[in-house]
Amino acid sequence: MMTTPFEAFSFAKRIPSTPSIGSTTVTKPDHIHLSFGFAAPHLFPIEELSQAAYEAVSLHGRTALQYSGSGGPRKILEWIQNRSLVHGIQAELPQILVTYGSTQGIDIAARILLDPGDHVWVESPSFFSALQAFRAAEAVITSFPIDEDGLRVDLVENALLEARRQNKPIPKFVYTMPTYHNPGGVTLTTERRARLAELAETYNFFIVEDDAYSELNFTGNKYPPLYTLLPGRVIYLNTFSKIIGPGLRLGWMIADRRVIDKARLLNLGGSIGVFTQEILAQLLDRLAFQEHVDQLSQHYHKQRDIMAEAIKSSFGDHVTFHLPEGGFYIWLRFGEAVNTSDFLREAAERGVSFVDGKSFFAKPEGYHYARLCFSYVSEEQILRGVNILADAYFAYEEQRLFGVTKQRHL
Amino acid sequence: MMTTPFEAFSFAKRIPSTPSIGSTTVTKPDHIHLSFGFAAPHLFPIEELSQAAYEAVSLHGRTALQYSGSGGPRKILEWIQNRSLVHGIQAELPQILVTYGSTQGIDIAARILLDPGDHVWVESPSFFSALQAFRAAEAVITSFPIDEDGLRVDLVENALLEARRQNKPIPKFVYTMPTYHNPGGVTLTTERRARLAELAETYNFFIVEDDAYSELNFTGNKYPPLYTLLPGRVIYLNTFSKIIGPGLRLGWMIADRRVIDKARLLNLGGSIGVFTQEILAQLLDRLAFQEHVDQLSQHYHKQRDIMAEAIKSSFGDHVTFHLPEGGFYIWLRFGEAVNTSDFLREAAERGVSFVDGKSFFAKPEGYHYARLCFSYVSEEQILRGVNILADAYFAYEEQRLFGVTKQRHL
Ligand SMILES: Cc1ncc(COP(=O)(O)O)c(C=O)c1O
Ligand SMILES: Cc1ncc(COP(=O)(O)O)c(C=O)c1O
Repeated sequence: MMTTPFEAFSFAKRIPSTPSIGSTTVTKPDHIHLSFGFAAPHLFPIEELSQAAYEAVSLHGRTALQYSGSGGPRKILEWIQNRSLVHGIQAELPQILVTYGSTQGIDIAARILLDPGDHVWVESPSFFSALQAFRAAEAVITSFPIDEDGLRVDLVENALLEARRQNKPIPKFVYTMPTYHNPGGVTLTTERRARLAELAETYNFFIVEDDAYSELNFTGNKYPPLYTLLPGRVIYLNTFSKIIGPGLRLGWMIADRRVIDKARLLNLGGSIGVFTQEILAQLLDRLAFQEHVDQLSQHYHKQRDIMAEAIKSSFGDHVTFHLPEGGFYIWLRFGEAVNTSDFLREAAERGVSFVDGKSFFAKPEGYHYARLCFSYVSEEQILRGVNILADAYFAYEEQRLFGVTKQRHL
Repeated sequence: MMTTPFEAFSFAKRIPSTPSIGSTTVTKPDHIHLSFGFAAPHLFPIEELSQAAYEAVSLHGRTALQYSGSGGPRKILEWIQNRSLVHGIQAELPQILVTYGSTQGIDIAARILLDPGDHVWVESPSFFSALQAFRAAEAVITSFPIDEDGLRVDLVENALLEARRQNKPIPKFVYTMPTYHNPGGVTLTTERRARLAELAETYNFFIVEDDAYSELNFTGNKYPPLYTLLPGRVIYLNTFSKIIGPGLRLGWMIADRRVIDKARLLNLGGSIGVFTQEILAQLLDRLAFQEHVDQLSQHYHKQRDIMAEAIKSSFGDHVTFHLPEGGFYIWLRFGEAVNTSDFLREAAERGVSFVDGKSFFAKPEGYHYARLCFSYVSEEQILRGVNILADAYFAYEEQRLFGVTKQRHL
């Protein structure tokens, strides 16, 4: 019956044309996924969680399975409130919105702050799913570099001055990962945080602070969340993905109550998975959280050291990187002429995956970077994986510098 | 520090200014919620589900807690595929997308089909969260009445002819609840289904078919899903909310693979709660689904009859309604001069809530309707609730017809 061709329909322009990365199709069991920004599965609190799941359903099943008002179980909100205090964040319960992971938090922030054509300023590199969300909101994305101390706030400031002078658009918001940046691994200094908050205040834009990794702290160094510096203009996002498990798809947003009210309007009257929230509430009740998170941090700290050592011994001076104070990632910088996308497939065939640099940039750039993740894999896999990756790289280098003109990796 | 006033920032225009209804703040324990479109909690498969939850976490916890590729567990997709076949829907696995309830399905459909200013045609009345999603997508919403046989497809056809003739916009899609309409309770006839599909084909628009209630069938009558009539132009939405429990927040979309691919792009690389899906997969494994759904249908059927009788005896000829063949709702039509919003508070004070007619319309209309839901409450509550509601209504009527000019219910 269908005679009108599919192509005759014009879909919304807002749909990005390229998929966000973040999943892979490789399923070989011995493949080493240095690409996955995943939690270490052996540290999931499975025992406590299976108990929690059983009890949540048998004790609270009839409410857990029902629709609830937009708030969700109060216990989770209170847990978030208390844990936030540890990081200096004071928030009333109505300022906290539980989201389907911080990915949804980013999406909601974009949808409430942006009209099509509005400007968003991001770091380069940035988190690919965030870039995808901003594209879906039809934003104009402008990138600012990071260095060892995080976002180059001085360049943001210059651009703002310039924009003001030339009557060009000020961003609706700056999206930043100030602590243990993904993929950069860097952390924004306290001074730069203060300056960025001042700029947001002066120029009347929001900061979307993506704080997914802050609990995974290897050094004990503390930095004030941007939220604490300018609560009225910061939308703070965090997630249970890195501290409990991403499969829960639960995260949270903290912001001015009026921002949260707008976010709720987008929630279309349905609250976020009460069922999963009840289970999580039970889990948080029985989990010694500080101990749990200390254990995670210790583990990831060790993994970072192993990876850093392996990189040094396998790559020598072919790469540089910042040793992250926390989080999941090491961001390798190769020589300018290197294009890491060009040995992605070679590496995969040899049994290792990583994410090539260009995936983290809004524009075509960043080719000479690669992101390695030390969280998901075992020690042994890190050692073997980095080794194999180096082999793939050196084979590519040889080809590039001395090889026949016919490229093997197109 | 914050000196720029909050109001100085302009949020996205797409944020609806009014909240979607669907939750209530009444928490008195003996309050009778004829407003809630909720499942009967005593029919939740709690026993099976707590077992399923325990086993899913202890057996599959390490994958259930992890990020997964965009597909989610294959078992759920296969269950959906098989169950769809019972309703005549043939779909390959890549045509199935698991969503956070059908509410998210509606939102995704709106986001992939609509640019701001695009046209959507809906039924009047329609589902309030859908209206909210279309407003959030900045659509122009046009409504078409329903009658005993569902959407007035003839009026849709006239409007299409007229639009073509006058070179006015054709809708990007028609959003419809063909089976056991919420709130109307009516079902679209087979002939009208065929005609609507033909129109979509001829005029090149999509149909978003919201089929949330089709499993709750009181008569055995069968109607072909619109999807089966025009698979290339129908986005079919369904949900586990009415057959298992809404707290899971799991539903699904079936559509042309190219539509699903676009929907996945909006998913920003994260799949939908693998954790909950694994639990659901375990549940579906151990639940005799046909028996379960037969039990639900029988129960709701009985509840419908009790409510219909109660309405007749309490309201007499002050109301008319269509006896629904399935679903959750009875849609009361009062005399034209009645405004049900005007006795909403009176009824609430007497201990009964319902949803006033205007909530289901895109424009200010429908004041003389009210939606009652027979699914959530007990038999006894139905009898008592309808009685109290009638008291509130007759008190209002007396006031309206013979009362002092000073209105009590403003
Ligand atoms: C910076 C950052 N934000 C957000 C996320 C997404 O987290 P969630 O699982 O909460 O959506 C990630 C996960 O990789 C991340 O690295
Ligand atoms: C017609 C219709 N569609 C969708 C929904 C939402 O269902 P879900 O819980 O799957 O989001 C409802 C629930 O009331 C409904 O009545």
